[in-house]
Amino acid sequence: MPQDSKGKTVLDPFGTSVVADYERLYKEFGIEPFKPFLSKVPNPSMYMRRGIVFGHRDFGGILNAMQRREEFAVLSGIKPTGEFHLGTLMTAKEIIYFQQQGGKTFYCIADIEAYEDNKIPFEKSEKIAVDNVADMLALGLDPKQAYIYRQSKEVRVKDLAIIFGRAVTLATMKAIYGERHIGLYLSALIQAGDILLPQIEDFGGPKPTVIPVGIDQDPHIRFTRDLAQRFHRKYRFILPSSTLHKLMKGLDGSPKMSKRQMNYFTLHDKPETIAERISNAFTGGRATIKEQRELGGIPEICPVYENCLFHFVEDDDEITKIYHDCKTGKLLCGEHKKQAIERVLKFVKEHRRRKKRLIDKAQKILQVE
Amino acid sequence: MPQDSKGKTVLDPFGTSVVADYERLYKEFGIEPFKPFLSKVPNPSMYMRRGIVFGHRDFGGILNAMQRREEFAVLSGIKPTGEFHLGTLMTAKEIIYFQQQGGKTFYCIADIEAYEDNKIPFEKSEKIAVDNVADMLALGLDPKQAYIYRQSKEVRVKDLAIIFGRAVTLATMKAIYGERHIGLYLSALIQAGDILLPQIEDFGGPKPTVIPVGIDQDPHIRFTRDLAQRFHRKYRFILPSSTLHKLMKGLDGSPKMSKRQMNYFTLHDKPETIAERISNAFTGGRATIKEQRELGGIPEICPVYENCLFHFVEDDDEITKIYHDCKTGKLLCGEHKKQAIERVLKFVKEHRRRKKRLIDKAQKILQVE
Repeated sequence: MPQDSKGKTVLDPFGTSVVADYERLYKEFGIEPFKPFLSKVPNPSMYMRRGIVFGHRDFGGILNAMQRREEFAVLSGIKPTGEFHLGTLMTAKEIIYFQQQGGKTFYCIADIEAYEDNKIPFEKSEKIAVDNVADMLALGLDPKQAYIYRQSKEVRVKDLAIIFGRAVTLATMKAIYGERHIGLYLSALIQAGDILLPQIEDFGGPKPTVIPVGIDQDPHIRFTRDLAQRFHRKYRFILPSSTLHKLMKGLDGSPKMSKRQMNYFTLHDKPETIAERISNAFTGGRATIKEQRELGGIPEICPVYENCLFHFVEDDDEITKIYHDCKTGKLLCGEHKKQAIERVLKFVKEHRRRKKRLIDKAQKILQVE
Repeated sequence: MPQDSKGKTVLDPFGTSVVADYERLYKEFGIEPFKPFLSKVPNPSMYMRRGIVFGHRDFGGILNAMQRREEFAVLSGIKPTGEFHLGTLMTAKEIIYFQQQGGKTFYCIADIEAYEDNKIPFEKSEKIAVDNVADMLALGLDPKQAYIYRQSKEVRVKDLAIIFGRAVTLATMKAIYGERHIGLYLSALIQAGDILLPQIEDFGGPKPTVIPVGIDQDPHIRFTRDLAQRFHRKYRFILPSSTLHKLMKGLDGSPKMSKRQMNYFTLHDKPETIAERISNAFTGGRATIKEQRELGGIPEICPVYENCLFHFVEDDDEITKIYHDCKTGKLLCGEHKKQAIERVLKFVKEHRRRKKRLIDKAQKILQVE
C-alpha cells in the first residue's frame, strides 16, 4: 500500500499496491517518474492524470514539442496474435491520444515478431492485422493522419535492422532476450527499425518520437536508444522517448493476463463470457459483508476496480467516488461487479458496432484483399 | 604428395599435395568425391576435368537435369569487397560454365555480407558491384539469361531470411560461425535466402540448383540444406547441390591469398605489379639449377604452376606438357615464370579491353546511376 513520508498509508484512487516496485525501476533502470511533468503537459491523457503512465525516458523533448506545437512523432504497435484485449487497448488509446495532440502517427503491425516469437504464419497474422486495425479505427485513430504498416511489408524497417545488426553483440542480445533462436534476435532488430522509422529521410528526418508502451517493453526502448546513439553520425537520430504505463492484472488477481488462465476477456468475446469472467473475478473484498461494511474494500488490489480505472470510467470524479465508496464499505463487490459488467458490455457493444463498418477500410489500408 | 593404393607416389598433373586433406573431407563431412561423375557429365568443365572441382553434395540431381536437358539452376555470387582476383575468378567461370550448359543463372552480389562481415558501406559496395558485374560480363556471362542482383535490393531474399530465422538456434550459429555479432548471423540467413531464391514461386518453383563454391564455403551449403529440409513442407524445396573446388594458394606458397601479405594479384593491378608478384613467387624449384635438372621441380606445391593450371593454360595437353617438363627438370622456374607472366598479362589486357565497354551495361543491370 502506498505510504506518505511518515509511513502513513496514503489514500490515492490512482495508486496501486505495487508502487514500491515502480520506485525500484526509477532507481535501478534510470526510468524517470512521470509525475513532475503532469502539470506541464497541455492536455494530459487519462492515463497520465491517473498515474497509469508512471514513468518515461526523455519525455522532455516531447513535452517541448507539444508545448511549442513543433513536430514530433508517436509510434507504437501491436503483435497480431489475436483480438484486442484491455492490454492492447491501452497502447491503442495512447497512440490516439498523441495523434490528437498533433503527433505524426505510426502504427506498426509487428507481424514479423508474431511469426518469430509466436509462430503465427503471415497468412494468419494478415487476417488478425485487419481486425486489429479496424479496432484502432473504431477507437478513433485517424487513418488519414497515420502511417499504418506491417513489418513484413516495410522494406525500410528491414533495412534498418540489417544496418543495426553489425553493432549488436551476442552478449547484448542474450542479456536482453536470453538464449533464443536467431529469428527472435532478428525481430528485436526489426523492432528497433520500427522505433526509428519516423526519423529517416522518407519521413522527414530526425524528430522527437515518443513510444508509449507498457513497462515490460522498456528493454526494447533502451536497446533502441543505444542503437540510435551508435548510428547517430549516419542518421542524426534523436534518441527516442517513451512513456511507460503500468501493466494490467488478470481478473483472477494474478499479475499477468494469460490465455491459459482465461483470466481476461477480449473486446470480441461473447457478452455472456465477459459477464461471467467479471462475475468470477477476484476482488479487494472482505470475507463477509459485515466485515466489508466495517473495514471497507481494498480497490488497490482489485482487478475489477482496475478495469474501471484503466478503461471503463472516464470521468475522474466518478472513479474517485467509486474508490471512496469501496474504501468506506458503501459499495460492495457484487454491486460493483454488476455496474462494471454493464459498463463493459455497453462499451463493447458500441465499439463493435463502430468497428463493423470499418473492416473494409482496414483491408484497404493494409492492402489486403 | 598423392599416392596410389600401394603407397607409391602418383604422377598426376591435376593433383595437389593436399589430396589427403580432401580425402578427410569425404569421410568427416559427408562430401562426395566428384571423380565418379566425371565421365557422365556431357561436357565437363576444365575444373572438373582437372580435379579442381574435387567434391560435391547431391550433384546427381544436376547431372540428371544436364543429361536430360531438364530445368536446373545455378547460383553463386561475390562479396563486393574489392576487385576480381584469381579466387573470385574461379566461381565466376563455374557460373558461366553452368549457364552455358543450360542452367537458369543467378548471380548474387553479397553486399549485406560485405557490410556485416567487412564493414563495407553500401555506398561503397555499390561501386565495387558495378565493377564486379562488368568483370562477369567480360568473362562471358550472358546477362539476358541471368538474374543478377544485390542482396540489399532483393526483398525476397530478406524475407526468406526472416522466415528461416525461427528455425535456427543460437547453438547452430555458434557452431558454424563462432561467437559473432548478430549482423553476421543475419547475413548467414540472408545467404541461405540467396541459395534458395531460384526455387521460389516467382522463379518457377522448386528445381535442382547447383551452387559452385570453394570448399571453405561448404558450411553455408550444409546450413542451407538443413533449412531447405526444415521448410520443405512450405516451399517443396529440393535440397541445393554444390560443386566444391579446391582453394588457390598465395603466390608465397602460403595456403591462403591474403591482402595483408600481398601474395596475390587482382585482374586490375598494374602489369608491373602482376609481373613483379609472379617473379617473386615461391615455386616448387630446387636449391640449385643442377639439382633441378637432375630431380625435376615439384609442381604440386608451386603456386605459379597452380595459376596456370587453374586459369591461364586452358589446353589440357599443354598443361600436361608443362607439368612433365617441370617434373623432368626440363622446364626451370625462371623460364616458367616468364611464360606465366606473359600468359597472365595477355589475359588481363584482353579482359580489361572487353570489360571497359561493359561498365555502362553493368550499371544498367544493377540500376546504378
